[in-house]
Amino acid sequence: MPLVRISHTQQLSPAEVKAVSSAVHLSLVEQFAVPKDDFFQIITGHSAHTALVGPPEFLGVKHTPNFLFVQITCAEGRTLDQKRKLYAAIAANIAQTTRISQSDVIINLVETRRENWSFGDGVAQFAQEPP
Amino acid sequence: MPLVRISHTQQLSPAEVKAVSSAVHLSLVEQFAVPKDDFFQIITGHSAHTALVGPPEFLGVKHTPNFLFVQITCAEGRTLDQKRKLYAAIAANIAQTTRISQSDVIINLVETRRENWSFGDGVAQFAQEPP
Amino acid sequence: MPLVRISHTQQLSPAEVKAVSSAVHLSLVEQFAVPKDDFFQIITGHSAHTALVGPPEFLGVKHTPNFLFVQITCAEGRTLDQKRKLYAAIAANIAQTTRISQSDVIINLVETRRENWSFGDGVAQFAQEPP
Repeated sequence: MPLVRISHTQQLSPAEVKAVSSAVHLSLVEQFAVPKDDFFQIITGHSAHTALVGPPEFLGVKHTPNFLFVQITCAEGRTLDQKRKLYAAIAANIAQTTRISQSDVIINLVETRRENWSFGDGVAQFAQEPP
Repeated sequence: MPLVRISHTQQLSPAEVKAVSSAVHLSLVEQFAVPKDDFFQIITGHSAHTALVGPPEFLGVKHTPNFLFVQITCAEGRTLDQKRKLYAAIAANIAQTTRISQSDVIINLVETRRENWSFGDGVAQFAQEPP
Repeated sequence: MPLVRISHTQQLSPAEVKAVSSAVHLSLVEQFAVPKDDFFQIITGHSAHTALVGPPEFLGVKHTPNFLFVQITCAEGRTLDQKRKLYAAIAANIAQTTRISQSDVIINLVETRRENWSFGDGVAQFAQEPP
């Protein structure tokens, strides 16, 4: 049920963009028990006219110009422990498969009710009550 | 009060993009009682460098490469019945006016408090308490 | 902790885009007590193929084709008074430093839990409980 928005600089090669995409999805599958085919992402590469802004350092974590944002809209209800494991997995998986370091991965979750999704055909597939 | 983000592939013609935009807005007017002039959207066409990712099938619903996302940030408080009718209306209206089929319309609602909006002049027009 | 998405028309010069970016951040620092180095934004310029849609008037507020959206994902818990002051500050700061008028600044807040953020290294820096 997540919809993932990945916003990266155009320094990344197409292969690296694909690696980031896979790293985030794999982490969701493993840590949030998302089905493998529940794989929905919007990926944007940013350059001069569509800029990413970030500080060189925040909370003691340094950022290079290669930093990226992963904003995940998902169903509410995951525990803090699951969230911690998700963040760690995303950062580690991205660092293992690209030149991007763990310090350059910024993550934000936006939680919504399960009834707030339609995955086609105009149906609320995850609503708890029968129609 | 909705802010709608429509993310589509660049396969769509400008006329089809406009039809999608109108279909979503008409559905909000009819099903969520949104005023006609409360019409705010951000529409992005995605190609190789700014990709949309979706599976060929999820929950038994098939997706073609022409699938699109409609993410709606709106005021909280609509009933499940209203949401169901909104999803059905958006998918049906898009399918009636474009080549996109109902199975290719993915929808997500992000609900916020009414005080979380300013529609110009730096004023919280929908806040419940007087300033 | 905010992640700010600024969506503007491509009428703006790079200097104006920078002024908008600074105006929004300054307002968050002053009104929401955001640290100065907590400065994360995604800025997109929109043209024919990635359009911004807005009405000429809504709630008695007129909009020109130069209107822009400021969507801020941030931690929950600010008071209505803080939100009002933030909206006023953003609109005033933008109008003071660019050609954009206060009536053309549309703002939306999406509030999330503090544990919903990782600012690098795969760590939930703002979670309330120790790991």
